[in-house]
Formats: sequence, C-alpha cells, structure tokens
Amino acid sequence: MPMKPRIAIDAMGGDEGVRVMIAGAALARHRHPDFSFLLVGDETRIEAALENHPGLRAASEIQHVDGVVGSDEKPTQAIRKAKSTSMGQAIEAVKSGAASAAVSSGNTGALMAMSKIALRTIPGIDRPALAALLPTLEDNDLVMLDLGANTEADARNLVEFAVMGAAYSRILYGYDRPRVKLLNIGTEDMKGTEELRDAAAALSRADHLPLHFQGFTEADKLSRGEVDVVVSDGFSGNVALKAVEGAARFVTDLLRSAFSSSVRSKIGFLISRPATELLRHHLDPNNHNGAVFLGLNGIVVKSHGSADAKGVANAVAVAARLVEDSLIDRIGESLFDIAAAIPKKGDVA
Amino acid sequence: MPMKPRIAIDAMGGDEGVRVMIAGAALARHRHPDFSFLLVGDETRIEAALENHPGLRAASEIQHVDGVVGSDEKPTQAIRKAKSTSMGQAIEAVKSGAASAAVSSGNTGALMAMSKIALRTIPGIDRPALAALLPTLEDNDLVMLDLGANTEADARNLVEFAVMGAAYSRILYGYDRPRVKLLNIGTEDMKGTEELRDAAAALSRADHLPLHFQGFTEADKLSRGEVDVVVSDGFSGNVALKAVEGAARFVTDLLRSAFSSSVRSKIGFLISRPATELLRHHLDPNNHNGAVFLGLNGIVVKSHGSADAKGVANAVAVAARLVEDSLIDRIGESLFDIAAAIPKKGDVA
Repeated sequence: MPMKPRIAIDAMGGDEGVRVMIAGAALARHRHPDFSFLLVGDETRIEAALENHPGLRAASEIQHVDGVVGSDEKPTQAIRKAKSTSMGQAIEAVKSGAASAAVSSGNTGALMAMSKIALRTIPGIDRPALAALLPTLEDNDLVMLDLGANTEADARNLVEFAVMGAAYSRILYGYDRPRVKLLNIGTEDMKGTEELRDAAAALSRADHLPLHFQGFTEADKLSRGEVDVVVSDGFSGNVALKAVEGAARFVTDLLRSAFSSSVRSKIGFLISRPATELLRHHLDPNNHNGAVFLGLNGIVVKSHGSADAKGVANAVAVAARLVEDSLIDRIGESLFDIAAAIPKKGDVA
Repeated sequence: MPMKPRIAIDAMGGDEGVRVMIAGAALARHRHPDFSFLLVGDETRIEAALENHPGLRAASEIQHVDGVVGSDEKPTQAIRKAKSTSMGQAIEAVKSGAASAAVSSGNTGALMAMSKIALRTIPGIDRPALAALLPTLEDNDLVMLDLGANTEADARNLVEFAVMGAAYSRILYGYDRPRVKLLNIGTEDMKGTEELRDAAAALSRADHLPLHFQGFTEADKLSRGEVDVVVSDGFSGNVALKAVEGAARFVTDLLRSAFSSSVRSKIGFLISRPATELLRHHLDPNNHNGAVFLGLNGIVVKSHGSADAKGVANAVAVAARLVEDSLIDRIGESLFDIAAAIPKKGDVA
C-alpha cells in the first residue's frame, strides 16, 4: 500500500454534484499537500470544476467514465453496470492498487454491494458494516456501526460488527479492550429482538475477545462517553444516527430563534459568540463526515450525500488517515486472530 | 365515562418510587382542582407520601395492593400475577369504571400486555401502539408511534398505527387529513424492510382514508414540522425517540460547558438567560411526558420511568385531557368507520 495517499474520488455521487466533490478534494489537498487524487467521472464536467483549483489539477489524474449510479437505484441494478460507473471505477482503482482508498457520496446500498463484490470481505467476516464516529461529552468519539449497510442483521452479523468496531476503536485510541454495547430498547436481558439477545449471549460468553462487552444500551446514552463502541443492525443504527443529527439541528435552530427573541437576548448572544461558535463547530455534521466500510480488503469511505466541500474534505481526510495508519490491514490482522472465536451460524441460537 | 377525571395512579411503578408518583399527582391536583385520584399500591407507603399533600389526600382514595411489577420482569410473567399488582389494579379500575384513566411509570411491556388483556383492542385493531407528541419547529407537535409497545410490526400493524396516529392528530389539531409518513432509512420506494414497503404500498392505494400518506421520512426530519404523524415499529420508534432525547441533552450539556468556558461567555449567558430558559423549558422531557396506548377500549398513559414530579403531573394531565375530550371514544368511532379500509392480513403483501 503506498504511503502517500492517492484517493479515488467518485466525482459524480452526492446530492450536490461534481463541483462540491472537486471543491472538497481541493480543500483536502490544500490541507494535506502530499495527497494525490484519481478523479473518476465525466471528464468535461470534472475539468470545468477543476478550473478554479489549479493546485488540485496538478495533483490529479482524471479517469473518464460515462455512467453514474442513481440515488434511487437498487443495489442489484447498480452492480450489473458497476464497471461503467464512476462509483464502480473508483472502487476498481482500490482493487487494482491505482488508488489507496475510494471516497463516494453516492447511493450507500450500491456502494456497499459494489465494494463487497470488488474487494471481498476479510476472511471470517460475512458482511461489511458502515461505521462512523459520534462526538461524546468525553474526549474520545464513539464508534457506531452498522449505520445502514445491512437493513437486517442476525446474531452472527452483530457479533462480527462488535469485533470490527472494537478493532477500529482499539486502533484509534489504543485501548486494550474497548467497551462494547448492543443498541436496544431497554437494558434488561429479555429486551429487544431474538437476534440481539442471541448476540448478547454469544458476546458475554466470549471472554477471550479483545473487547469488554457490557450488555445493552439505549439510544439516549450514545453521547455520554460511557461506551466506546455501539453495535446495531443497519436500520436501527441509521435511525439513531439521523435522529441525533436532526435533534442537534433542532436544538441549534431553537437556540437561534431564542437568541433573536429580544434585544437583550441578541446582546447576550453577541457577547457569548465564542461559546456558540464552539458549539456550532462541534455539532456541524460536516466535521464528522466520512463513514468507513469495515470488513473489506480495501478502504472505501462513504461521504454524506448532502455534505458540503468541507464535509467532503473531511471524508477524504478520514480515508487518508486509514491509508497512512494501514488501518484496514491492522483490523484484518485482529480479525484473523479472533475469527475462530466468532460463533458460526447456528451456534448462537 | 365521568366528566370529572378520576385518575388511577400506579403508585409503585417508576425508577423514582412512590414519593415521586404521589408528588406528581399532588401537582396535577394543584393545577386542576377538579381531578380526583385512585392511588393503587402499598397503603403504608402511600399514606406516608401523602403526609405532605393534604389537598391530594382529600381528593384521593387508596386501594391497597401488595404486588408490584419489576422493571425487568417479562410481560408473560407479569400478566400471570396482574390482579395482585398495583399496575394491574390501576388498569382494572379503568375496566370497571372506578377510574376514567390509568397512569403508570412502570415496565412498558407489562403495562401493554396487561392493558390489552384487560381492556381489549378496539374492533379492527390487532395491536395497541404507544404514541407520544414530539416538539417541532412549527406550532403543532408531531404524533409518533409505535414507541416500544411492539418490538416488531408487520405491514398490517403499520397501517393500523398510521390510521390511529392520524385519528389522534386529527382530534388534537382539527386537520381533515393529517400528513402521515413511515419512518425509514431513505425516502426512495425500495428502501427499508419488506414490511415498510408493503405498508407504504397499502397506504398509497388507500385514498379514502382520512389521512394524507406522503411516503417515507428519515429520522433527521422528525422535528421540522413537515409531517403530522410518523409511524414505525416499536423498536425503531423507541430508538428514534431516545436518540432525540439524548441528543437534546447532549447539546444542552455542551451549551452549558461552552457558556462556562470564559468570563465573557458567562456574562453573555446571564444576559441571555430568558432565551436559554425558554430553550430549557422547551427541551425538558418532563414537559412532554405521557405516552398513550392507542387502540384500547380505555385510557392508559405511560409515564417515563425516570420522570420527576413535574413529569408525572404532565402524564396525569395528558390522561385527564383524553378523558375530558372523550378522545378514545372519538378515535374508536374513526376507526370503526374506516376499519373496512384496513388491509386484512395477506392483502398487503
């Protein structure tokens, strides 16, 4: 794997189009002059977007591809035409070694299906999972997975997600045994679905895994910093993540209107501007953009469909960090060591 | 149904014990002097808690019951001993007409199971659902259901929840056809589980229902005021609700620490105190406490296990409002009219 990150950018994905992807890559390049890029997509539109970014232009190669994956396309449709799309070719570049990581703001389901087919999962892992970092009240972020790669997950999948999430947290923060919990609707043993109860039983028995399983958590405890990894199926995880994003925006919107409600409040707001700016910075989803598909033989980072240039730059920085730290290799090693400990299908029921 | 609300209080449920339940009832009685109460549970402890609340004492009857439902008890265990528990007897009081509504802060699963057995569902409804109101940026609250009564829900259940939620919203706000969406992890037709897609297809076809079905919504859009009713299975709804609660608390905690970060910020905070108090009031979960089991032949309100006296008083006020407005009767009438329109099992697949 090259030491200087060369990132393949799916220039056509995302709600905001080519210009935002290119502006994001340019911002990442500005911050990290050693990054280089493979920009995949419609050459004419990429060239047009590059006009304002000569620095990025000099550090980039363009790979023209006609096809795009639509945001409403089924993964099963998308994979049939994978190699004719910008998303598919960005992933192929990782597979061939032409790039050390891929970043896409496109259709999550298609990105996962294509990545899984092209890059294959690490031995011992059935399904990749989408993981992201959530801010907490403590110093370290929370690793949350799955965030939407798998609408449903059985007990074995959940155990695999726990192991992968723990490896991610261990590498990021150096914990020996990160604290892991399963997302549920109560903390008592009998709460939730059969899959959750079976996964909890399997994780409780597996004392030798390099993680400290601490049972169930509810979604109101995510930001407290009391746990390092929270595991769920992709539906629940996605709902929890988006509910957190929406609520944070709701509170800041309320705050804005409260502070504009009177002259006195406006003056108070102006005086306390540094505090509210700090808050805004902390809560801006663009500052946490960049979710990783854990469990693949390659680095694929999903940028939020509505991310702005700063958000895309953040996703590129996440991808580059994974490259520089050989994160996937190191997760792979951890997984290989403990693959035997993961219950096989049927064992956990 | 009596016009003056007489509320049965399960005095033994909740994390905070008898004193909080009694203090909450006393606060509700103070605000609404026409309320009267049936306090169900350990007589000695209830009498002790009443010592500081002579006004409530005068308006209350005590029904001694030895048994309690534990917070970690399975609903199947709890229902076997229902009639010997404070929760079960509070529900029985609604069934017999001794009370016009019941309020409990106890085990949600047990409360639902007991309520369903004792009160039965309205004809045409398979399963009751837990509904609550969420604040939005617009004037009206959002009706959200199911919030945990049913861990899983099939397409027919989801359609029933939609109809019940719409009836609740219609009665609260007077809309002819409330805007209804299903909670999903994307807004495209093919997103989510089979159950969600089938429910969406059934609701899209059912033009004659007194609601305006508008497809899927994601959890980050809940507070925007763009929809009147959001429907989900109880697991996803519970995760979304708790994630919103946790995120709101996270933001206010951050805000507090930001405002204490410097003398300048502290001064700004003091000056803008009315604004931040408004925010705090708006976000305090105790001000939104009181979830309703929709679909039963009787009024049962679930108070949050960790609610304080103000929260319990709010739940009592919700119950009383439902009594005064004959809300359940009116929902029942709506449901009876449209029961034929709800797809039968097998029709929706």
